[in-house]
Amino acid sequence: MVISPGLLKELQGMVGGANVLTSPESLLCYSYDAAPGLRSDPEVVVAPGSAGEVAAVLRLASQAGVKVVTRGAGTNVTGATVPVAGGIVLLMTRLNRILALDEANLTLTVEPGVITSVLHGYVEKRGLFYPPDPASASVCTIGGNIATGAGGLRALKYGVTRDYVLGLEAVLASGEALRTGGQTVKNVTGYDLTRLLVGSEGTLAVVTQAILRLIPLPRAKRTMLASFSSVEAAATCVSAIIAARILPCTLEFLDKATIDCVEAYAHPGLPREAAAVLLIEVDGNPAAVAEEAEQVARLCRERRALEVRLAQDAAQEQSLSLARRSAFPALARLRPTTVMEDATVPPSRLAELVAAIARLGEKYQLQVAAFGHAGDGNLHPFFLADGRDPEQASRLDAALAELVETSLRLGGTLSGEHGIGLAKARFMPLEVGPTALGVMRAIKKALDPQDLLNPGKVLPP
Amino acid sequence: MVISPGLLKELQGMVGGANVLTSPESLLCYSYDAAPGLRSDPEVVVAPGSAGEVAAVLRLASQAGVKVVTRGAGTNVTGATVPVAGGIVLLMTRLNRILALDEANLTLTVEPGVITSVLHGYVEKRGLFYPPDPASASVCTIGGNIATGAGGLRALKYGVTRDYVLGLEAVLASGEALRTGGQTVKNVTGYDLTRLLVGSEGTLAVVTQAILRLIPLPRAKRTMLASFSSVEAAATCVSAIIAARILPCTLEFLDKATIDCVEAYAHPGLPREAAAVLLIEVDGNPAAVAEEAEQVARLCRERRALEVRLAQDAAQEQSLSLARRSAFPALARLRPTTVMEDATVPPSRLAELVAAIARLGEKYQLQVAAFGHAGDGNLHPFFLADGRDPEQASRLDAALAELVETSLRLGGTLSGEHGIGLAKARFMPLEVGPTALGVMRAIKKALDPQDLLNPGKVLPP
Repeated sequence: MVISPGLLKELQGMVGGANVLTSPESLLCYSYDAAPGLRSDPEVVVAPGSAGEVAAVLRLASQAGVKVVTRGAGTNVTGATVPVAGGIVLLMTRLNRILALDEANLTLTVEPGVITSVLHGYVEKRGLFYPPDPASASVCTIGGNIATGAGGLRALKYGVTRDYVLGLEAVLASGEALRTGGQTVKNVTGYDLTRLLVGSEGTLAVVTQAILRLIPLPRAKRTMLASFSSVEAAATCVSAIIAARILPCTLEFLDKATIDCVEAYAHPGLPREAAAVLLIEVDGNPAAVAEEAEQVARLCRERRALEVRLAQDAAQEQSLSLARRSAFPALARLRPTTVMEDATVPPSRLAELVAAIARLGEKYQLQVAAFGHAGDGNLHPFFLADGRDPEQASRLDAALAELVETSLRLGGTLSGEHGIGLAKARFMPLEVGPTALGVMRAIKKALDPQDLLNPGKVLPP
Repeated sequence: MVISPGLLKELQGMVGGANVLTSPESLLCYSYDAAPGLRSDPEVVVAPGSAGEVAAVLRLASQAGVKVVTRGAGTNVTGATVPVAGGIVLLMTRLNRILALDEANLTLTVEPGVITSVLHGYVEKRGLFYPPDPASASVCTIGGNIATGAGGLRALKYGVTRDYVLGLEAVLASGEALRTGGQTVKNVTGYDLTRLLVGSEGTLAVVTQAILRLIPLPRAKRTMLASFSSVEAAATCVSAIIAARILPCTLEFLDKATIDCVEAYAHPGLPREAAAVLLIEVDGNPAAVAEEAEQVARLCRERRALEVRLAQDAAQEQSLSLARRSAFPALARLRPTTVMEDATVPPSRLAELVAAIARLGEKYQLQVAAFGHAGDGNLHPFFLADGRDPEQASRLDAALAELVETSLRLGGTLSGEHGIGLAKARFMPLEVGPTALGVMRAIKKALDPQDLLNPGKVLPP
């Protein structure tokens, strides 16, 4: 036990007794996140109510040498918020205010605990748009999105979280507060600490406030579903759309296994005879959208789509979107252990990746499925097994390692949007190599010399 | 003299004798850049022809403890490439190949010495678009754009250089090569070293290759000029356009002094009776562009524009663009010393900034002018004087310091797109504060412990 009764009392004094949790049930609740099979109890859960309280807690932790794992909604799938070294879970959900909407300058200032979909709704009601749209938007927090550098469904056209963070307020492990960036799109005053913190998974600092860049809300959108008799046909169609110089705002892919699961689960009316479907959404100016939707539908038909279904109203649109949003829950209920992977390749290599996933399923006798963001090459292969059985767990492990190698061989990355956390730290050297890894370690050491913030994550031991 | 004849011989062996310059004329040529009044001779200029040669030169330099200043076209205006500590100027202009266009995945791989406008032309011929567009595009290099985190005319709608760099190859001070990022828009594998290097002005590593993100070339654009009887009216109109949820691809502002100079210099036919003009370009889908151009023109008229001139053909468009592109040369010829500043504020504070600049001109008895990127709040105030006269130089210096304070007070930054270099290092603490500055120093030390790369830049001594 690192945390003494005296320390606990100090923490209670800082954030209030009700915001310091130590019961076994509480510790259990914060021992895991959405990563399967990873668990470790913290010694205490502390929920600060202000940036000042965050700084006070970190000052105390650094004096006492206590580890700190920052956590929002805990929806990450890499164990990034599992407190493997015990210590404090710093729960940021009380810092959940939308602080300022600056309509004249298209910025939104928020605390990290704001739920992403709440933020979406808030700005969209005012004709503005925050494009990053992780699938977990209805439950995840913007702080978690920043910590993982979240992507989502609209990255091909609009980019990812890092592209929409203009400035941050954060607290270092030492308890010192700093500001990065600012209110303007253009800011090259010194090193880009903003984007160094984005995606650093709470290992470098604790974000207490963010200034986000907004854009005008597209005035129109059009959704369609195209089904294909083979994965290759669907992938060829993705390439054809990009070659036609069209960037749909979403361009999602579902394979046969995903289609079957989703149909059995949510009945959105997907074509059961298809080997793959694309869910495509174009958005923007109404005239442009009408033209692009027509063009995309024609491209799909020319690429021998079995069927192209254009949503005719909001209800049909909703039902098509539901098909995609249901993929994760539909697959997750099949087996005790669901590993959702994050393999990302240049979009033109999509068909090769899907074929490789199928081969891995056969080789390791695992149920597999794949869906994801075809437009940006970010696929979510599913590997389903019963991880409680050591033999299955070991096959699962071997399959995942081989998937990482495959993504890299195809010119991709081992994580497109989920991050590294605990689950993928061991693979880091394969992608970034010893020199870049050395630089990352040096940066970690420079910012957090005691290794207090989220130890064991991102960088392999 | 740090560089011994033996060292010189080794350098010649590495890159070839013709690519090692030591004549007084050569050293003079590389002693300055576009920053007024800053000069310091290097001891040698070395022009490597490959990444391997860059690594060899850096290994040698680090063994010998020789400083290295990386340089492209030297168009920066902050002294960022002035070799204040002597040593080697590492000239990257021989590394000027466009290596690979991946049309299927919308990426372009280039060496750092490629001229930005060459790159623009190369991809635009193929229906693709690299949006960052610094005013010096026809002479500057993409490596310099990456080093400074260049912005340009299209940032409001399209963002800046950092938003279009997916991956880098670079060499550390030690001579070790590393890769960052990759081929995909989504990549969250470890810390974002890509964007740490973007904007680091050659102080952390030498970039030898970059993977850039492309987007489809907008199929249409429409250019217009709106003139106003006051700066406030022009600024109000900028706000009205943004409030109407329209993002023009360029939204440029020229004040009266700039209009007069440009007219006298290039005669593009600007309205001499105006106190300010906006040069506005909308681009995208043809139908959308037609609608937006109409809407913007109407907004300008409603905001009491004296005149709104819509370019009717390519020639008229060219002539309007010329007006903006001529601003720098037109102003620069007026007095011996031209300081082009880079004050950036939230766009809604534009009128206040322009008024403050006029007041600074009066207070310090300096000729001033202002133009710039109104849409993103990035103004380029000009201060004109004869810097050879110590008394004038001292007034100039005081005015610049006060301008920095003003930008910060208005919620802005001391550099929107030009960077810090030598000229603004002293102001860094005012904006980023001691903690962030400490983090930047720690990062510099971690990557370049001997302080070999571009010493004296970005971080104040």
